[in-house]
Amino acid sequence: MIEMTTDALYQQILLKGSMLCVGLDTDYERLPEKIKFECRRGDMAMGGKLYSGRARAIVSFNKAIIDATAPYAVAYKPNMAFYEYLGAEGMKALEGTVAYIREKHPSMFIIADAKRGDIGNTAKMYAKTFFETMDFDAVTLSPYMGMDTVEPFLQYEGRFAIVVALSSNPSSCDFQFLTSSGKTLYRTVIETMMANSTPENMMFVVGATQASELAAIREYCPDNFLLVPGVGAQGGSAEDVIRCGKNSKGGLLINSSRGILYASSEADFAQAAAAKAAQTAVFRTS
Amino acid sequence: MIEMTTDALYQQILLKGSMLCVGLDTDYERLPEKIKFECRRGDMAMGGKLYSGRARAIVSFNKAIIDATAPYAVAYKPNMAFYEYLGAEGMKALEGTVAYIREKHPSMFIIADAKRGDIGNTAKMYAKTFFETMDFDAVTLSPYMGMDTVEPFLQYEGRFAIVVALSSNPSSCDFQFLTSSGKTLYRTVIETMMANSTPENMMFVVGATQASELAAIREYCPDNFLLVPGVGAQGGSAEDVIRCGKNSKGGLLINSSRGILYASSEADFAQAAAAKAAQTAVFRTS
Repeated sequence: MIEMTTDALYQQILLKGSMLCVGLDTDYERLPEKIKFECRRGDMAMGGKLYSGRARAIVSFNKAIIDATAPYAVAYKPNMAFYEYLGAEGMKALEGTVAYIREKHPSMFIIADAKRGDIGNTAKMYAKTFFETMDFDAVTLSPYMGMDTVEPFLQYEGRFAIVVALSSNPSSCDFQFLTSSGKTLYRTVIETMMANSTPENMMFVVGATQASELAAIREYCPDNFLLVPGVGAQGGSAEDVIRCGKNSKGGLLINSSRGILYASSEADFAQAAAAKAAQTAVFRTS
Repeated sequence: MIEMTTDALYQQILLKGSMLCVGLDTDYERLPEKIKFECRRGDMAMGGKLYSGRARAIVSFNKAIIDATAPYAVAYKPNMAFYEYLGAEGMKALEGTVAYIREKHPSMFIIADAKRGDIGNTAKMYAKTFFETMDFDAVTLSPYMGMDTVEPFLQYEGRFAIVVALSSNPSSCDFQFLTSSGKTLYRTVIETMMANSTPENMMFVVGATQASELAAIREYCPDNFLLVPGVGAQGGSAEDVIRCGKNSKGGLLINSSRGILYASSEADFAQAAAAKAAQTAVFRTS
């Protein structure tokens, strides 16, 4: 088990010249016909396991996307919803995808986009699930139920909780901007989490559609990495995000999912994904 | 597919004289030796599928618990964390458990305790996962990211979103009691959700350790069912909950998990669970 640190992550960012995290929101229905067709031919062996049917198609697609985009990315983020949707078959595809990244691209940071959040006993089970059963480096969490729902995830050396602070959807304003004692809820979330963690076990989700908020967040949260979704399909600009949000260790993982995965629906989908990845979240120190 | 309504649920509450929801937080490590031993003998056939190993053990245990407690319960609530922990094997056990309840106890209300909450596209996938792939009647959701993260779940006739308002853990006070414009966050959550839903597609989670809050909640939320965890192992009293929280349709599902599942760790575990279930969340109109 490789333990990831923010220094190691920054080294990867410098090496690749990129802050890109590729979101693996892999939807079976949207896979290229080429992939669906090949998968009707039978099982695929990988890492001592057999993959068939939809699990094979998803693993095939993810492998091609990962190999094509790896030169331009420092992280991958499978979105749990798309795997859970296929039940046990989807969980197998997820396990195969994570195992493949670990074997072929061992320096990648792998995030489970799960938005979990539950009380003590259940939170412990989720932490074991994502960090032991599944070997992710990090998992996204929802803060609504408070600090003790996050703590079990902080007990793992070299693993990260990534707490949603400010999301990129239209309804983010419903609750996250409510002000109490002069502070927005999302600021109180960040400060409460920071008081009980370190930048070596805690990151925050801050949506890219809120780039104007990033500079303000950096004033009270200078050191934690921020995972920034909402670039690409959701309309945020990676340049704005880097300008407002970077810190002395890079400090950003900028996610793009659909814009890369579905850059082409034809046989050239992997090359198209690579081309798109190469343009997204480019980071240069000079 | 049976569509559940609050009237149908109330009929079950009257019929059973109970508001009990049994939480299926089934932890393989805590199963009775008898179950673990039997499952080493080979596969078990059920509903045209084969179950082996830990999936077999969990399905066997759940079947015994469900058959023993069904006379005293109106709902079952598998806790996703305990199934996800076992990966694809756990998802198979979950699917088997839900299929068994549907077949043998078709009037039961089945809740996925998942605490999901994510943006539009992902929320739609979760709704399809829990209501189509898995056939649950309801799923628990975290409200942090706002109304649009809940909406896809409200589009299913006869299915319910159960939004966490006030949780039963010590850290529930970190954010849920923050006051903005004179209202607590959890009240704002309830009112925002109520404004965009009906009691036929929305319920709320309110922890039983907060029984004093229940009567106050009933003043602005008279009609929605409330799912109340925290009875039993977590220390809340079912009598207090019923006194403070019931409405004209019953209006409560009172959950107990560990107190029932692990009432005995011996061969009599199912009888012990039944005895415990019979004493919990008893409801009489006269």
